[in-house]
Amino acid sequence: MILSMGSTKSRFWNSRVNNLAPYIPGEQPKEQLIKLNTNENPYPPPPDVLHAMSRALNEKLRLYPDPCCTEVREAVARRYSVEENQVFIGNGSDEVLAFAFGAFFESAENSNARPILFPEISYSFYPVFAKLWNLPYTAIPLGREWEIKPEDYVINAGGVVLANPNAPTGISIKARDILDIADFHLAHNKLVLVDEAYADFSDDTILPYINDPLVSRDNILVVRTLSKSYSLAGLRVGFAIGSGALITALESLRDSFNSYTIDRVAQAGAAAALSNTAYYAEITKKIIATRERISKELLKLHFTVLPSSANFIFIKHPVMSGEDFFLGLRKNGILVRHFKHDKIVDFVRVTIGTDKDMDIFLEICSAGIKSAQ
Amino acid sequence: MILSMGSTKSRFWNSRVNNLAPYIPGEQPKEQLIKLNTNENPYPPPPDVLHAMSRALNEKLRLYPDPCCTEVREAVARRYSVEENQVFIGNGSDEVLAFAFGAFFESAENSNARPILFPEISYSFYPVFAKLWNLPYTAIPLGREWEIKPEDYVINAGGVVLANPNAPTGISIKARDILDIADFHLAHNKLVLVDEAYADFSDDTILPYINDPLVSRDNILVVRTLSKSYSLAGLRVGFAIGSGALITALESLRDSFNSYTIDRVAQAGAAAALSNTAYYAEITKKIIATRERISKELLKLHFTVLPSSANFIFIKHPVMSGEDFFLGLRKNGILVRHFKHDKIVDFVRVTIGTDKDMDIFLEICSAGIKSAQ
Repeated sequence: MILSMGSTKSRFWNSRVNNLAPYIPGEQPKEQLIKLNTNENPYPPPPDVLHAMSRALNEKLRLYPDPCCTEVREAVARRYSVEENQVFIGNGSDEVLAFAFGAFFESAENSNARPILFPEISYSFYPVFAKLWNLPYTAIPLGREWEIKPEDYVINAGGVVLANPNAPTGISIKARDILDIADFHLAHNKLVLVDEAYADFSDDTILPYINDPLVSRDNILVVRTLSKSYSLAGLRVGFAIGSGALITALESLRDSFNSYTIDRVAQAGAAAALSNTAYYAEITKKIIATRERISKELLKLHFTVLPSSANFIFIKHPVMSGEDFFLGLRKNGILVRHFKHDKIVDFVRVTIGTDKDMDIFLEICSAGIKSAQ
Repeated sequence: MILSMGSTKSRFWNSRVNNLAPYIPGEQPKEQLIKLNTNENPYPPPPDVLHAMSRALNEKLRLYPDPCCTEVREAVARRYSVEENQVFIGNGSDEVLAFAFGAFFESAENSNARPILFPEISYSFYPVFAKLWNLPYTAIPLGREWEIKPEDYVINAGGVVLANPNAPTGISIKARDILDIADFHLAHNKLVLVDEAYADFSDDTILPYINDPLVSRDNILVVRTLSKSYSLAGLRVGFAIGSGALITALESLRDSFNSYTIDRVAQAGAAAALSNTAYYAEITKKIIATRERISKELLKLHFTVLPSSANFIFIKHPVMSGEDFFLGLRKNGILVRHFKHDKIVDFVRVTIGTDKDMDIFLEICSAGIKSAQ
């Protein structure tokens, strides 16, 4: 039988596939667990989003969707006060990031390519994208307080990628610091890619500075997602905002890959979500309040809790190893995320859930510590 | 102002973007036209598909979809009598093809890379994918009757890509011919990628030969789509069937790009569609009957009509140029597709619509010819 080759290598794979190191997404468990492992929103999307999607369930599904995602782009442009030609829509922010890595950074085959820079501890998809496109990169260590040190990114490079707030630490840096980094790289014609997946839970975003009438900022691309603050991880929509020329490059790469990446129903849902600011402001406020409350309680229990500007917290148990704490929580019905990277192996990342779920989490943490003392 | 850079090149684009030649999808017109230009199905998807999607419109949209698309893979496996680990699901067959080109063919940077082979007149996305991944390729001319000549593909190469039936000609080749090509390349560890986007309208498919218990066929990857015979172009789902090792490579590449490419609602709709064989058999039969009827009528009007095994016909007006015929139809409210490629510039491609739409089309053809005589 030839069918059970499973995950063994094959003589038909090319050099690219043999060199890939794919991203491993957080578990989507089949059993009933309190799911605090992939930074999903604990509150549902609003009814008007479901209604808009429902209206798109009709015989027109036989027709291709709008390849330009016009309605979604208009909604993003209105929501963030930019022009439509400054907006690119992708199948989740991961796809947008994949295209951006492929469009703006030079591959190692080009002898002039300098390494791109991103934090050593950050979204673990960045080195995967770099491998995919064969980009040289330098992973820059965080500071002693797990912070991104802006001065480390003001050096000659092939470009910069920063998550703000950073993941999985949750720590943000000031818009001013990113603008300084961008100004330096503008002089060298290099891009600064700012992944603002979690920015709605933070005070720090550079979006308001993109269209500064006094300063050209055409080397900044901001990437956002509907998977976190918009509570639509199941929909697969993300977007980028930047200068028209950056957007055109993303479109070129997309149209060399797959012209239609957002289906009709998802386009309807995304446009509706981006037009409902009141509901999302309310649930975001709730999540931030829960985050602050839980952080304080964990500090009282002698946890290390990094100061989060996201919808998750990155915490270290006072006595247990990260892995034991992860396994202990799982045994108690709570799924969080533990990363194998040496430097953060003592930590776990916990998504902020509903107050009820987080109270159960707190109770287990508290009971767990007692039994370990 | 920095915002209106439009489509001009930018100092931030890398060499890849500067070298791309993106695919230009068929027009999605805003005005009311009889739309026969992008090979969509004229009949709607069945109600059970819409119901399945409707059930997926719930608060779970806040959660990521199943990255493995388990339900859809199971449905494909059942429908085509293969194992689940032989199935890869993608965001339309274009995405599946993009991953396949990226996973199995060597790029020009590798000095051992031989050119891949595909027909000179075929799906115009193939050279675009080749550019995207920097693959050397040879475009092989069709025969005098616009047919693919199988013997031309039995030469040492980096791999082979064949659309069967071919587009935009609609002409198919026998499964036996493809198996012979595959057997030759198997000895050289090279892949044969068979794009069966239109195979449901044809008698020729190699799917039944994939799991031949007597002959190993692990160098064949078949790609299919729900956009044509399944009447779900608006849903963005396609799939590949091949050996487990080929599927693993596609997964590796996808997970280095975007782990979740099919949203929750699309997964529900695709699984339902793949489970409804009766409805689709019926509308496919209708489309084939209309195709045969219209082909005969056009022959009577002295059109050149290539023998189609697809849901479109490729035809040449007896006196008008391809462009004039295209423009004349458009003026009469009918949108078809005209390609600029020199060798087929006299032809237009006409999607088979409903009988009513095709009668209007026929009437215009007939009236048009009268006025031209």
